[in-house]
Amino acid sequence: MIVKTFAFAAALLLGAAVAQAQAQAPDPMQLQANAAALRDQALKGSPAYPFLRDLTTEIGERLAGSDAEHRAAQWAVTRLKAMGFQNVHIESFPVPGWTRGEERAELISPSAQKLMVTSLGNAGATPPQGIEAPVALFHTYADMLAQPVGSLAGKIVVVTQPMVRAQDGSGYGALAVMRFMGAAEAEKRGAIAYLVRTLSTSDSRLPHTGATDFPPGMAPIPAGALSVPDAEQLDRLSVGGRPLRMHLVLTPTFKPGATADTVVADVVGRERPDQVVLIGGHLDSWDLGTGAIDDGAGAAITTAAAKLILDMPHAPRRTVRLALFGAEEINFAGPAFAAVRSAAEQSHYVVAAECDFGAEPVYGVALPGASAKTPYGAMLAEAIAPLPAYVDRAPARGGGEDIEPLGTHVPLASLQQDGTHYFDIHHSADDTLDKVDAQRMDKAVAAWVAFTYLAADSDVDFRAKGAL
Amino acid sequence: MIVKTFAFAAALLLGAAVAQAQAQAPDPMQLQANAAALRDQALKGSPAYPFLRDLTTEIGERLAGSDAEHRAAQWAVTRLKAMGFQNVHIESFPVPGWTRGEERAELISPSAQKLMVTSLGNAGATPPQGIEAPVALFHTYADMLAQPVGSLAGKIVVVTQPMVRAQDGSGYGALAVMRFMGAAEAEKRGAIAYLVRTLSTSDSRLPHTGATDFPPGMAPIPAGALSVPDAEQLDRLSVGGRPLRMHLVLTPTFKPGATADTVVADVVGRERPDQVVLIGGHLDSWDLGTGAIDDGAGAAITTAAAKLILDMPHAPRRTVRLALFGAEEINFAGPAFAAVRSAAEQSHYVVAAECDFGAEPVYGVALPGASAKTPYGAMLAEAIAPLPAYVDRAPARGGGEDIEPLGTHVPLASLQQDGTHYFDIHHSADDTLDKVDAQRMDKAVAAWVAFTYLAADSDVDFRAKGAL
Repeated sequence: MIVKTFAFAAALLLGAAVAQAQAQAPDPMQLQANAAALRDQALKGSPAYPFLRDLTTEIGERLAGSDAEHRAAQWAVTRLKAMGFQNVHIESFPVPGWTRGEERAELISPSAQKLMVTSLGNAGATPPQGIEAPVALFHTYADMLAQPVGSLAGKIVVVTQPMVRAQDGSGYGALAVMRFMGAAEAEKRGAIAYLVRTLSTSDSRLPHTGATDFPPGMAPIPAGALSVPDAEQLDRLSVGGRPLRMHLVLTPTFKPGATADTVVADVVGRERPDQVVLIGGHLDSWDLGTGAIDDGAGAAITTAAAKLILDMPHAPRRTVRLALFGAEEINFAGPAFAAVRSAAEQSHYVVAAECDFGAEPVYGVALPGASAKTPYGAMLAEAIAPLPAYVDRAPARGGGEDIEPLGTHVPLASLQQDGTHYFDIHHSADDTLDKVDAQRMDKAVAAWVAFTYLAADSDVDFRAKGAL
Repeated sequence: MIVKTFAFAAALLLGAAVAQAQAQAPDPMQLQANAAALRDQALKGSPAYPFLRDLTTEIGERLAGSDAEHRAAQWAVTRLKAMGFQNVHIESFPVPGWTRGEERAELISPSAQKLMVTSLGNAGATPPQGIEAPVALFHTYADMLAQPVGSLAGKIVVVTQPMVRAQDGSGYGALAVMRFMGAAEAEKRGAIAYLVRTLSTSDSRLPHTGATDFPPGMAPIPAGALSVPDAEQLDRLSVGGRPLRMHLVLTPTFKPGATADTVVADVVGRERPDQVVLIGGHLDSWDLGTGAIDDGAGAAITTAAAKLILDMPHAPRRTVRLALFGAEEINFAGPAFAAVRSAAEQSHYVVAAECDFGAEPVYGVALPGASAKTPYGAMLAEAIAPLPAYVDRAPARGGGEDIEPLGTHVPLASLQQDGTHYFDIHHSADDTLDKVDAQRMDKAVAAWVAFTYLAADSDVDFRAKGAL
């Protein structure tokens, strides 16, 4: 029985309630009908947009470890309790407390020009008055890496390699090392500061921030991102090897003793509450925008999916656990979440999936191992086909920063959202609510609720399909 | 003889050279052939893009009265001389020398949030530490004007009326008063500062600047533009009359004794050099971007059109005068240009037209008075039809800030460019070279060169058609 066009309540009237209330083997027809009804309920209007609107409006930006991030966690606890979730609680953990300061850059020669720059997370600071130094400009990251140790002494290193637009975000994946490791690599070669062409597919003057990293024992140098037009301006000005000289002010600080908060809530399973289907997004954001697509949307989509399941007349067999992580952007939340859960506890997690790629529809779902070929895979494919979305024939390759630390013991799935335009605004001041379309976001909720419900109310065992 | 598909040189080989070299009545067939050849030459690649690239790259932003604006004028003199123009010279005139300072805004309550703001040109300053005050928010400009004098005492007034997208820019025209007069109107009502939702059709966090004005004797209050997403955030936060409180830092200054430079150059006419066809754009820009679409493009398009005419084997009958104005953005260049030219001198100007609406193609040409119905109108329509573009049946309504002071004595024409997306980036940091497509800009050059050449080499008399 496929009840594609009926709302959830209507589906229940057709007999689902009686069938589900008994502890017995899942009825595939009933699972399919319920998944379709939940999907259609999401498409009619889910709680995702109101959640996202209120989070980004009332709190705004939510940098991990900041007062605003703590306010967001308190806000989420209140909201989730009001929505009826069970076991709502906060898990706190230490973070570096990196805080943005002043940021300015001006070209001194060959002509005086302001440049738009933003500091990278975890980067060091210039003196308050800034630094003035010659620029060593490289058109590719590989060109910079090819320089010998010490050869860039006293230079502000600039790398202007452009990012490629790709639906699945692989253009970002291919180049993120330029931001994440570039400052440390430049420092090894003598650089006193490092600037990267912003990892963006737009032509905006707004630079995009993001984390950079330094090995233990290496003092962070100042590091930032230049907007795409500014990087192209430097490319033009340096034609023929013309020397550039720059003044740079970046004064971030670290706040000792800072912590961040992950918020956890459950829909407790009716038969096997110890078996957990984990879904979630992250509550923290970068500090330039209000974190609408990254990742208020992911938090909102998974909260809405869980809420639709919570509102069923009967809980699913297994527990649906919602985690709104508190420090994804600096990758402290996932390790903290995994660290407080023993391997034995994690072995009861059926599957984990993270929503952190904006507010656009899901177009494909990659399942753990060979699970696409299970009855679960077939039911999910049937449920999401009308969106349209497919179950990927290939297995999931990882699941995101916040759940990958679980990956040793927990099968990971990946619900793929369309990221064609995601990196136009990701990590920039442009990441604001107005970029989100409620109806398109509800298409993502529809896929998430089908995925989550079927995992929680069926007896699918992803481990059996080589997921670990 | 219509030689649409021949390059200019080819057209000359067909007999134009011999016919033109003699002082005799213009041959309509020859005019038409030359106009078509010039148009096609423009479409094959004009000097517009190299001019714009070098101006925006070597100089960058060019705020009227700044060192950069003077460097731009010197750069243009050198460039125009190298291109072979005659009578290249600078005309200097006084300007207020308004210079941007610090700009920051934060909402204090109901929650701490950064806002993206930029100061309006000619606006006053806060103390260095800024001001903190309650917000009086109005959703329309009319709502603010409806407040009694004195009723907004001590408030930071915010007006969040959105701008309408329109191809011909009329959405901007309809709302510009909100920026240009709003600060003074708010001050009359007691406001200590004024912020306007940025006049923009985009959803970027980048605010757009632009001039504001205060009547003589009124001390300028601080005034700025909030980005579109920030204005919408305030709209949401103030629902139900919830009070807002803001901290605002805007510290612009005025530079006594500042001057700006208009650059003038000629293609001297071969028969009636005292009769002038005036075209041009403005060299100055706002200081946030590099002034690519506003108005490096207009300067580049008209320079390219004049250069194509300059490169003809024989000059046109009349003089083509190119003016690259030095302070359009604060409306000081047009009055200065007119003031140094007597009414008698202006009476020899055949027509004036200003290019100040970006780098997109021209889609229509509005001529002075009833000139669309002259043989000139018919020839121009024929020349630009393939672009495609039309001659408007309605007369030109004004011509732009820089030529309107001439309008008492000089017929004005208006070449209409597609402005559908112009106000997405106009006056913002996003106004950079990468937003310009060279081939599309050359379509504008093609219309401009046809318009200009036909006016300069024919005996059209716009005055006879009720243009004044």
